[in-house]
Amino acid sequence: MARRKKDSEDRTERVLKKLTDMGHQAIRDIDRRRSPKLSIPVRSLSNVSFNKRRSIIELGNSKQDRLFFNTGMAKKFMQTFLVAEACKQLLDQGKTTSIRDLFYMVKHTIPNSMVESVEDQAESDACLEDLEVTIDTLREELNLFASNRGAMVGNVTLIDSGDTIDCRRMGSGGYNIPSIVEPDVIEFVEINADFVLLVEKDAVWRRLNEDKFWKDYNCILLHGGGQPSRGVRRLVYRFADEAKLDVFVLTDNDPWGYYIYSVIKQGSINLAYESIRMAVPKAKFIGLSAEDKDRFDLPNDNKLRLNKTDIARARQIKKYPWFQKKHWQSEIKLMLDNGMKYEIEALSSKGISFITEEYLPHKFSNPDEMLD
Amino acid sequence: MARRKKDSEDRTERVLKKLTDMGHQAIRDIDRRRSPKLSIPVRSLSNVSFNKRRSIIELGNSKQDRLFFNTGMAKKFMQTFLVAEACKQLLDQGKTTSIRDLFYMVKHTIPNSMVESVEDQAESDACLEDLEVTIDTLREELNLFASNRGAMVGNVTLIDSGDTIDCRRMGSGGYNIPSIVEPDVIEFVEINADFVLLVEKDAVWRRLNEDKFWKDYNCILLHGGGQPSRGVRRLVYRFADEAKLDVFVLTDNDPWGYYIYSVIKQGSINLAYESIRMAVPKAKFIGLSAEDKDRFDLPNDNKLRLNKTDIARARQIKKYPWFQKKHWQSEIKLMLDNGMKYEIEALSSKGISFITEEYLPHKFSNPDEMLD
Repeated sequence: MARRKKDSEDRTERVLKKLTDMGHQAIRDIDRRRSPKLSIPVRSLSNVSFNKRRSIIELGNSKQDRLFFNTGMAKKFMQTFLVAEACKQLLDQGKTTSIRDLFYMVKHTIPNSMVESVEDQAESDACLEDLEVTIDTLREELNLFASNRGAMVGNVTLIDSGDTIDCRRMGSGGYNIPSIVEPDVIEFVEINADFVLLVEKDAVWRRLNEDKFWKDYNCILLHGGGQPSRGVRRLVYRFADEAKLDVFVLTDNDPWGYYIYSVIKQGSINLAYESIRMAVPKAKFIGLSAEDKDRFDLPNDNKLRLNKTDIARARQIKKYPWFQKKHWQSEIKLMLDNGMKYEIEALSSKGISFITEEYLPHKFSNPDEMLD
Repeated sequence: MARRKKDSEDRTERVLKKLTDMGHQAIRDIDRRRSPKLSIPVRSLSNVSFNKRRSIIELGNSKQDRLFFNTGMAKKFMQTFLVAEACKQLLDQGKTTSIRDLFYMVKHTIPNSMVESVEDQAESDACLEDLEVTIDTLREELNLFASNRGAMVGNVTLIDSGDTIDCRRMGSGGYNIPSIVEPDVIEFVEINADFVLLVEKDAVWRRLNEDKFWKDYNCILLHGGGQPSRGVRRLVYRFADEAKLDVFVLTDNDPWGYYIYSVIKQGSINLAYESIRMAVPKAKFIGLSAEDKDRFDLPNDNKLRLNKTDIARARQIKKYPWFQKKHWQSEIKLMLDNGMKYEIEALSSKGISFITEEYLPHKFSNPDEMLD
């Protein structure tokens, strides 16, 4: 408890220093009669690349100046400082809040004008991303949370805000994964699991929880409710990094499922600056794979045909540098050749617990069928 | 534990009997050389009414026959029986599943034809609703779950599937409310709270949890992530019904917030047949109210103006029989006259914890400001 409190104070102090340094720099610029400026790493695709050696998507070194004395930049400059000020306030008070709240915190009518400091949330969100990358700090470290999604059960005990949570005894609902899972909020007390199984959908998670799959296979079972939230990604990262657990990702067989896997493994293009604290290069794809169509004799049905959007997305993904491995190229090609996609739920046509009793045991006994 | 198991067996037996009775009736019809038929209560608006005395939205008595020997009805008749058969299978095996899974369970190509038993999930969903209302059984009792949404903390201990959950010690994440919360799955062990506070948004819930509002005010704090899921509604109903707790609903000040409140209180039009097991007529609306604009000096801002959709929806709601009380008519009129809507988050412009330290204490000290 004492250590966690100490960790939390250390983090707060470290982040507060970065924020106040940013302010002091601006004051120094003003004292020297120069335009205050921020040097912000560029977040566009042009500055994003795939680091093959580390196997993560990374932000490059390009930076752009944001000047106060520039009619095109002055407002954004002000907004960035308003966001920084609001974050400082959160840290000073030891409170967390949502990015929607942040928008209202920085929004006001500029005195003696009809101009609003921020027009809509997109503006404060963009400034927050700029701030994160400029001072190299996750938004969670700035006490801001994203939406709360996902649940967890399994052989792990943790302390969340002082409460001990035994994830082996969380009933049918499970532990609700919070958005902020930094070590000073969530401390791992005991991890006895052999691996992490992250599933795309809550319905599949509930099937596996009801069947106590995590008990039989001694794992930690999480879902992210579709594209996993930042909290879920960061928690999976911590299991992989701190407890050295293997990570398996179970998604639908469609381009969206592939992409969910790749975000867990290599990071995302939009949030490339966070890959280093979120990506899990050792994650493995446990299906569904296009080859499972024949392996498990899955239904061949008009309604499961890839539509135009699916096909376009699959072709796009096929070109991403992190999908260039031979087996991924053939996987995507096979899906396109088959012209079919499969939801995990399609396995239910073979029996309600087919996934628990047949599919997953088969995959774990045949690791060569997993994609890396 | 033994009692819960007994309850579960009783429920299963009772529902299985209804399903087999339905099958036996069809067989009797065939033996008598009559067309098998189902008599299905009509679920359209024409058969829905507001029961003023009980203060809930109810389904009327109109029924419609669904005949097997009728070219327009034969397929739907078959689908309804396929869904009933799948539910029987779930109950026989003691397993639960999602309505997406149900779709795959009943989907197959009809032998010697190119015809699919069901084309898409909308068809199996509709048949499920028909089945629920025909045999007067909630889908949760048929072992089907809807999407999982919502979290809970507070002065309550419960047993979920054999695990004891102390909702006072659930950290920042909270207990993830499952979709099926029937007494044989979720048993209340100890409830020491004075009331239930249901908030619309998870961000607001987290603010109140972080500030430990539920501890200071001795309540159970839930959110439903927008329009509350069936699990959340049913749980709130059980707190109100079994523990006789008061229920307060905290939403945004817009027509969607009003409607969320009314669904908790009177039930919904679409699921009128479930009001009796879901609606909580004693629920009170704790805001935001249009009068709070002046009470709390809320910002007057272009971006908060009601848009066309808001205005149309407000006018529609104003006509609903359950919004005819004088104070609701003036509330909606005032919102329309102001031309403004307010998110709970708008209170953050007054301070991060304004809602915990000022707004809610003010409302609880001034119950006349709550709307009934």
